[in-house]
Amino acid sequence: MTTRIVELRQGILKKNDELARELRGRFEAAGVLVLNLVSSPGTGKTEFLQKTLAALRLIGSRAAALVGDLETDNDARRLALSGVPVRQINTHGICHLEAEMVSRHLESWDGVELGGLDYLFIENVGNLVCPSSYDLGERIRVALLSVTEGEDKPLKYPTLFNSVDAAIITKMDIAEAVGFNREAALRNIREIRPGIRIFETAARTGAGIEAWLDYLAEQKGATRI
Amino acid sequence: MTTRIVELRQGILKKNDELARELRGRFEAAGVLVLNLVSSPGTGKTEFLQKTLAALRLIGSRAAALVGDLETDNDARRLALSGVPVRQINTHGICHLEAEMVSRHLESWDGVELGGLDYLFIENVGNLVCPSSYDLGERIRVALLSVTEGEDKPLKYPTLFNSVDAAIITKMDIAEAVGFNREAALRNIREIRPGIRIFETAARTGAGIEAWLDYLAEQKGATRI
Repeated sequence: MTTRIVELRQGILKKNDELARELRGRFEAAGVLVLNLVSSPGTGKTEFLQKTLAALRLIGSRAAALVGDLETDNDARRLALSGVPVRQINTHGICHLEAEMVSRHLESWDGVELGGLDYLFIENVGNLVCPSSYDLGERIRVALLSVTEGEDKPLKYPTLFNSVDAAIITKMDIAEAVGFNREAALRNIREIRPGIRIFETAARTGAGIEAWLDYLAEQKGATRI
Repeated sequence: MTTRIVELRQGILKKNDELARELRGRFEAAGVLVLNLVSSPGTGKTEFLQKTLAALRLIGSRAAALVGDLETDNDARRLALSGVPVRQINTHGICHLEAEMVSRHLESWDGVELGGLDYLFIENVGNLVCPSSYDLGERIRVALLSVTEGEDKPLKYPTLFNSVDAAIITKMDIAEAVGFNREAALRNIREIRPGIRIFETAARTGAGIEAWLDYLAEQKGATRI
């Protein structure tokens, strides 16, 4: 039975990979930089993304966001406060987003054209396991990790951390209050993914957001004005 | 293809349920109260459990713990500081514990007999989705939620919260620092699971641990001395 499940799973992943490749081609042709944000529930993905979207809007960049959750549209409503187009994807029991969900929600998104965007952020379902295997066609995959989560998360979830291009440490403003061991966290991230770009941020104070925006602009291949 | 996957999945769950029922019978016959602790990664399950185990040991109760993680035995080493028997289960990529893993690790656990225990705690893999469907034979399923995670987690993960017998809010000592909305959190938990017992705790200060120990003793059907 296990063999049949593995085969079926590989079939699903293969289909997802094919669609993801197709999406990646469309994103590149449209000149939009697509990022896939992954973290545990409660890391602060939505607050961090809200600040990012608002900051990008201020400097004249055109951004939009898709946000995945099992249920509720709470996060889409929070993100919409940034003033950019946001769309919720409810997965109803599935613990990750799939390329097909992204494709379907992009196609039926009134008023949003890929060609009119500089950045598309995809906030994945809060989970450190399931999203690892599902390529969404993104160019940059980002793992977020808050100072309250324990410095050994990269060692416990190597599959995810090994698949990301950048890591964002969130809630640095309460690092001292929770006894965060910064050196251990950085060491553990780099042990799993040597040479990775790491951003130490606090959405509440704005700390680290500048460096993150510079990275986005650099990745977009454009110079910020 | 979807139909076949659903059938296979139901087969696996059915097998798990049968084994869990068997385990539950063994646990009851041995007079050990078994709890399954579920939360997001970083909620503070391990620290809370460490305090619980140490406190139980102080009052003369016999406890032990099984702890699940994809990789590493960090948590088993942390829990062992409490001075009670602890065993790590590494799932290597699987995002939940299964009854078979519990059964196998209990059978080969040198020096630990179910009949010699008052309490067995099973700390599940950090995940709010996958563990929901896997009965481990526990009598009490507990969801933990930290003040840093966002008050709407019960609404976003109703399947898990609807399956638990008690909820523990952790890290109450930093509730103010992170702007935790206590009323919203309690309301959301009770909306998904009316009448549930909720404990507001802080492992660092010991807040709420007394009430939790009283609950354990009450559930065990014994009176604490």
